[in-house]
Amino acid sequence: MSQEDSVSFNRVTIVGPGLLGASIGLALKEKGITKEIWVYLRDPQKKEACERSNWCEFATLDLKEAVTGSDLVILCTPVTSILEQISKIANWASPECLITDVGSVKKNICEKANEYFSACRSHFIGSHPMAGSEKAGMKYASAEILHGKNCIVTPSKEANHQQVIRLSRLWEGLGMKVTKLDAVEHDILMSWISHLPHLVASCLTKSVATTDMKKIFLSGNGLRDTTRIASGNPELWSQILLENRNNLQGGINVMIENLQMLKEILGKADKPELVSFLQSAKEVRDQLNEHR
Amino acid sequence: MSQEDSVSFNRVTIVGPGLLGASIGLALKEKGITKEIWVYLRDPQKKEACERSNWCEFATLDLKEAVTGSDLVILCTPVTSILEQISKIANWASPECLITDVGSVKKNICEKANEYFSACRSHFIGSHPMAGSEKAGMKYASAEILHGKNCIVTPSKEANHQQVIRLSRLWEGLGMKVTKLDAVEHDILMSWISHLPHLVASCLTKSVATTDMKKIFLSGNGLRDTTRIASGNPELWSQILLENRNNLQGGINVMIENLQMLKEILGKADKPELVSFLQSAKEVRDQLNEHR
Repeated sequence: MSQEDSVSFNRVTIVGPGLLGASIGLALKEKGITKEIWVYLRDPQKKEACERSNWCEFATLDLKEAVTGSDLVILCTPVTSILEQISKIANWASPECLITDVGSVKKNICEKANEYFSACRSHFIGSHPMAGSEKAGMKYASAEILHGKNCIVTPSKEANHQQVIRLSRLWEGLGMKVTKLDAVEHDILMSWISHLPHLVASCLTKSVATTDMKKIFLSGNGLRDTTRIASGNPELWSQILLENRNNLQGGINVMIENLQMLKEILGKADKPELVSFLQSAKEVRDQLNEHR
Repeated sequence: MSQEDSVSFNRVTIVGPGLLGASIGLALKEKGITKEIWVYLRDPQKKEACERSNWCEFATLDLKEAVTGSDLVILCTPVTSILEQISKIANWASPECLITDVGSVKKNICEKANEYFSACRSHFIGSHPMAGSEKAGMKYASAEILHGKNCIVTPSKEANHQQVIRLSRLWEGLGMKVTKLDAVEHDILMSWISHLPHLVASCLTKSVATTDMKKIFLSGNGLRDTTRIASGNPELWSQILLENRNNLQGGINVMIENLQMLKEILGKADKPELVSFLQSAKEVRDQLNEHR
C-alpha cells in the first residue's frame, strides 16, 4: 500500500472490546492508523483493564460520550446489540464520521442502518472481518488474528464512494483482504461457508457425545479439528444463526440429504459410489487449500 | 520408560511404506529400536526411493521374501489389503515373530488373524496408531506424526501376555500413548470419534459446494478446519467406512436427528433452546481440549 493509499483517523471508538474489538484496537495502534482510541463497554471491571492497556486512551460506560467527536466508530458487540445501537449512534455520531460494524450477518444490520443514517451526514457501511476464534474475550486479543484474513465490506447502493474506499483502506491497513459484496449476497454465502459449518460442528459434537465419554479423549486430530468451532460462544452464535435462519434452512436440508445418500451407499456397500462421493468432496476441499 | 522397559528387534518388516508405514520406519530407526528395516511394496519406482532413504536397508516386491526371518512385521497397507495379507503372512512369518497392523477397523482383521495364526508359533496382535493425515504418501513421512498420539492395541482373549507387553512397548517407544481395547469395542468407538467425523466432513464439503464456488475462498478457518479431513484419500477411506458400516449407520441416524432438531429450533426461532443446544455441544468439545 503506497503512502497516498493509507488512511488515518484522529479518534476511533471501539464499541465492545471483546476478542475482535480489542484486536482491532491493538492493530489500529500498532499500525499508527489512529491517534486516539476510545472504548465503550458495559462492564466497569473491564473499563479499568482497557485503560491500563497500551492501545486505549479512554473507556466509558456511556455510549453517547464514547462516540461523540470520533471520526470512526466500529461496532464490535454481538449482532443483536449492534442492531440496538444503530439508531442511537445515528443521533450521536459527528458529521462525516464513518461508522462500521463487525457483525457476521449483514442484511438486517445494513437495512436498519440505511433507514437511520439516511437523514445523517455521517456514513454507515457494514463490514465483516472474518477473524473469529472459538476463544472469547479481550485477554486473547492480538493484531495477528486479523492479518491475512478476509474482510467483507457490504456498502449499500447509496453508499458514499469515498467512504467505501476509506473503509476498505482501513481493513487493508490492518492486513486484511477486502472483498465487496451486497449484504443479502453476503448472508447467503455465510449461511454456507460459515454458519452451516458451525451448526454441523455442534451437531457432530452432540452426536459423538452419545458414545462412551470416558473414551472420547482417544480421538485423533480429525475429531478435534472437525468440531473445534463448536467451542464458540453459544450466546453469540445463537444470535448469528437466528439472524440468518432463513438462509440456513436450505443448507441444513442439503446436509441431511447428503447424509442420507451416504447412509444408502453404505447400506448397499456400494464401493464405487462411495469412492466417487468422497472423491468429489475431496476435490472441493483441495480447492480451499489452493486459495489459502 | 526405563532401560528394562525398552524393546528392540533385529529386523522389522514394514509392509506398505505409505505415510504411516514410512513414518513408523523412520521413527524405529531414529529411536534405535531395530537394527534393520525391510520393506515390502508393490511399486518398483518406490522401491528405489525406499532403498535411497536412510531408514530402509532392503526393499522388495516379494512379500514372502520381505517377512521371512523378521522378528516384527507391521502391516501398513489399506484395510482390504491387510485382510488379504494375513493368511499369507501366517504361513511365512518366523516362529516367535510378532505381527501387527495399523488398520483403522479391527474386528474383521483380528478375527481373520485369530483364525490363521491359531496354529502358528508367531503372534498377531492388532494395533491402531491414530496418526493419520489428509496427506498421503511416503514423501510426507515423519517420526513426529506419531509422537504424543494415541495408539490402540486390540489383543484377543487368547493373546500371549508377553507379546502384548512387547507390542505396547514398541508403540510407547515411538512416543505414543497406548490403550488396550477389545476389537469390537474399538470399532464401535471409532465409528463415533473417527469415521462419523470423516463422513460428516465429506458431506459438509459437498453441501458447501452447492453455493457459488467462486466465493468459497472467502471462508475463514472454521470451514477449513471443519472440512480438513475430507481431503483424505477416497480409496483408503471408502475401505474404512465400508468395513465399519454397520456401526456407522447408528451414528449417521443420530447426526440426522440432531440436524433436524436444530432445523426445528431455528424454524421456531427458539433462542433459549438454541443456546442450550450450542452450550451442551460446547461443554463436550471443551472436554476434548482438557484431555489433549
